[in-house]
Amino acid sequence: MAETPGKQLHLTAFMRPVSLHTGAWRYPGSYPDANFSLKHLKSFIQKLEAAKFDAFFMADHLAVLNMPVEALKRSHTVTSFEPFTLLSALSQVTERIGLAATASTTYDEPYHIARRFASLDHLSDGRAAWNIVTTGNPESAKNFGRDEHMDHSDRYKRAREFYDVVTGLWDSFADDAFVRDVESGTFVEPEKIHTLNHVGDELKVKGPLNIARPVQGWPVIVQAGQSEPGRQLAAETAEVVFCSPRDLPAAKALYDDIKGRAKAAGRNPDHINILPAALFIIGDTVEEAQQKRLKLDSLVHYDSAISSLSIALGTDASGFDPDKPLPKDLPETNASKTSREGTIKLGEKEDLTVRQLASRLGGQGGLAFLGPPDKIADELEVWLREGGADGFTVTFPYLPQGLDDVVERLVPELQRRGLFRKDYEGTTLREHLGLPRPENRFFTKTT
Amino acid sequence: MAETPGKQLHLTAFMRPVSLHTGAWRYPGSYPDANFSLKHLKSFIQKLEAAKFDAFFMADHLAVLNMPVEALKRSHTVTSFEPFTLLSALSQVTERIGLAATASTTYDEPYHIARRFASLDHLSDGRAAWNIVTTGNPESAKNFGRDEHMDHSDRYKRAREFYDVVTGLWDSFADDAFVRDVESGTFVEPEKIHTLNHVGDELKVKGPLNIARPVQGWPVIVQAGQSEPGRQLAAETAEVVFCSPRDLPAAKALYDDIKGRAKAAGRNPDHINILPAALFIIGDTVEEAQQKRLKLDSLVHYDSAISSLSIALGTDASGFDPDKPLPKDLPETNASKTSREGTIKLGEKEDLTVRQLASRLGGQGGLAFLGPPDKIADELEVWLREGGADGFTVTFPYLPQGLDDVVERLVPELQRRGLFRKDYEGTTLREHLGLPRPENRFFTKTT
Repeated sequence: MAETPGKQLHLTAFMRPVSLHTGAWRYPGSYPDANFSLKHLKSFIQKLEAAKFDAFFMADHLAVLNMPVEALKRSHTVTSFEPFTLLSALSQVTERIGLAATASTTYDEPYHIARRFASLDHLSDGRAAWNIVTTGNPESAKNFGRDEHMDHSDRYKRAREFYDVVTGLWDSFADDAFVRDVESGTFVEPEKIHTLNHVGDELKVKGPLNIARPVQGWPVIVQAGQSEPGRQLAAETAEVVFCSPRDLPAAKALYDDIKGRAKAAGRNPDHINILPAALFIIGDTVEEAQQKRLKLDSLVHYDSAISSLSIALGTDASGFDPDKPLPKDLPETNASKTSREGTIKLGEKEDLTVRQLASRLGGQGGLAFLGPPDKIADELEVWLREGGADGFTVTFPYLPQGLDDVVERLVPELQRRGLFRKDYEGTTLREHLGLPRPENRFFTKTT
Repeated sequence: MAETPGKQLHLTAFMRPVSLHTGAWRYPGSYPDANFSLKHLKSFIQKLEAAKFDAFFMADHLAVLNMPVEALKRSHTVTSFEPFTLLSALSQVTERIGLAATASTTYDEPYHIARRFASLDHLSDGRAAWNIVTTGNPESAKNFGRDEHMDHSDRYKRAREFYDVVTGLWDSFADDAFVRDVESGTFVEPEKIHTLNHVGDELKVKGPLNIARPVQGWPVIVQAGQSEPGRQLAAETAEVVFCSPRDLPAAKALYDDIKGRAKAAGRNPDHINILPAALFIIGDTVEEAQQKRLKLDSLVHYDSAISSLSIALGTDASGFDPDKPLPKDLPETNASKTSREGTIKLGEKEDLTVRQLASRLGGQGGLAFLGPPDKIADELEVWLREGGADGFTVTFPYLPQGLDDVVERLVPELQRRGLFRKDYEGTTLREHLGLPRPENRFFTKTT
C-alpha cells in the first residue's frame, strides 16, 4: 500500500517495568530486576522514543495486598518506583515522548495532583499526561486511614469534581502573568493570578496553585473507564481513552458511544483519542506468535492462575483436571455474565485446557494481535479505517524482546504504509495527539 | 594551617531556584526565570557536586497566599517546581550529591510520603533525604479542605506519629525479600514482607509499602524545629538539624541542648549533624561583602520590606522616616520579645536606616558570614572546634555568582585546611554524613 496522507494511528506504551504480564519476569531474556533498575527503564523509553511513540504510560497501584499471598509471591507487578519520581527522572533522558502518570482522585489531594503534573509538564517541556483513576481496589483504602472503600458512584462523583478543581488550579496564572520586570520590581502581576475558592460537595480548595500554568496549558487527560459512569466521565473530560474491547465490533460500539457522548457534552469528538489496550506479539507466523504466548502464559504459576479462573467463572476451579478442557456442566453463578461466558467461549475458541485458560487469565487476557508485522498492520489498518480505534495502548508480552519486536518490526511496517509518523512534528504531547492547548478559563489571551 | 585528620564540616545548599532572598532576582547577573528553567538548576547542582557538597536541599511551600499581595507581586519565592519531580529530574544529571526534599506531615499521607522518598532513594542510588515539616503557614490549610490550621502541638503530635508510620513502611520488606527465583517462580518471599497495621491517635495505615526497602534503609531525616516540641522531635528523630541561631553562643546552647536530648532519648549524638543556616557572601574584603549585601537588600521593594519590619516590631512602621535610624521611643507591643529586641539591636549594631533594616528583614535576616575566604574559613573553624556546628546549611545571596564565589573561593580554602572533603568517600548521602544505615526493625539481617 502506498503512503497516504490519511489518518494515522496513535501509539502509547502501557508499562510496568518488567511487563504487565505476571509471568513475564520468568521469560527467557527478561529483566526480573527491572522494578528497581532505572537502567532498563531508560533503555525501554529511549527505544520507544526512537520509534516515535506518542507516550510512555505507567500503570500504578496503591497497595500490595490486592491479591492473595500465593499470587503476590509470584508477582512482579506491584512493587516498583512511584510514577512521578520515575517519569521525572525519565524526562531527563528523553526529549519528545509523552509521559503519562496514573494518579488517584480517591486517595490524593487535588492541590498535590495539580502541582505535580504541572511540575512534570514544566520539567519535560510539555509532555505530561494524567491518567485519572478512581482506584478500584478496596485494599488501597486501608493504606489511607479508611476502613471502607468509597463506593463506585461516590468515587466517580468525587473524580468529576476533582477534575474541575485540578484544571481550575492549572489556570491559576495567566500565561503572561510572570513579567519579571527587574526595573520596577514586579515579578508577577496580581491581576493575572486567579484564586479558585472552590467549595463543592466533596472538595474545598482555595488556590491559587503555586506553579505557573503548565506548558501545555493542561497536561493531557487520560482515562480508562468502561462502566457507565466511567464512559460518561471520559466523554466529558478525557482526551485519550484507554479501553479494553474484546474485538472490533465491541470496539466500534464503544467508540461510537464515547464519541457520541462527547458530542452531546458539547465537545469536539476529534479531541478524544480512543486507544484500545492490546497485547502485541510478533512472530514470523501466527503459529509462532501463538507459541510464544502459550510459553509466556505457562510461566504464570498455577497457584496464581487457578484463582484468576475461579474469579472469572464465579466458581472454585481448583478441582478441575488441569490438562482437560473446562467441564461442560459449569454451575450458574453470581459472577458477571460477560466474564463467565467470555471465559467459556475463549476456552472453546482456542481449544485451551483448564491450565492454559487459567494461565491466560492469570497472565494477561483481553485483546491481542499476534503474528507477522504485515498481518498485524493489516488488522490495525482495518480498526483505524472502520472506526474501532484512533490508535492503540500497546502492551508488551515481555521485555525487552517483546518491545524490540514491535519497534523494530511492526512500527517500520506501519510507517511504510503511512499509518504512523516517521518523526515527531511537534514538541509537546498535545501536538503528538493532535489536541489543542486549552484556553485559560479565567484569562483571555492578550494579543 | 596544615591539613589535619580532624573533624570536617558538612555543607548542604539550601535552595530556591532564584535564591531564598526576595530581592535576588533583580541582582545583576541573576536568572529571574530560574523558577521554571531546569537548565539553571542543573548547572547549580552540578557545581555543588563538583565542590563535594553533602546535599542539595530544596525549600518548599504549600500555598501562594502566604504573604500580602504587595509582597507577593515582588516575590519569586513561592512559584516554582514541586520538590519530588524536580529532585528526581536532578538525580539524573548528578551522581553523588544528596537530594533533600521538604514534605509536610500535616497535609499529606504517610503512604504517599514513604513511597515517594523510597522511590527517589532508589532512583538516585541512595541519595534521598526527607526534611520533615509540619507546615506553619495557615494559608496552606485552605488548599487542603480545611478552614482552620491544625494547632502547633497537634501538628507536632501528628508529625511524631507520621515519622513512626513512614519509617515503619520503609521497613515493609527485608533487604533480601526479593529473591526473583525464575526456576521456582518465587519473586518475593511472603515471610519477608511485614504488614504494619498501624492504628494510632492520628493515623491508621495498613501497609505494606509497595516498594522495596530504600537503598539507604531509610532516607536521611532532616528537621528544622527550634521551638520546644521542634527540638524534641529533632532529638528523637533527626539526623540533620537545620537551625537558625543568631550567633556562636546561641548556636552552642542549641547544639548542646539537642545533642543532650538525643542522648537522653537513647540515641548516639554523633548521629545528629547540627547545621546552622547561614548566608555566605564572599568579597575581597569584609567591606566589599557588606556592600554586596546592602545592594542586594536594596533590591527588596520597600512595600515588601516595610511590612516585614512592622511584623518584627509588632507596630506599624510605615510612618517612620525611611532614611533615618529607628525612632528611639518605640511602643511596647505584643510582638515576640526576641524578634523586637533583636531587630532594634541589629539596627543599632550595623547603624542601619529604617529602609536598610526593613530591607534586611524583607530579604534574608539571620546568621551571615561575610568577607574574604580565609576570614570566613577562620570563623567556620571556630564554630566547628567550639561545638557550635557540625557544618552549615549554606544559603547563597544570589545565583549564580553567590554560589560560584562559595564553590570557587571558600570551598578550596576549607579543603586546603582539611576542614572539608576533597572527594566523596562513599556513594550514599548517609555515607557523606557519617550516618549508619538503620536496621530493619522487623527483620534481622541474615548473614
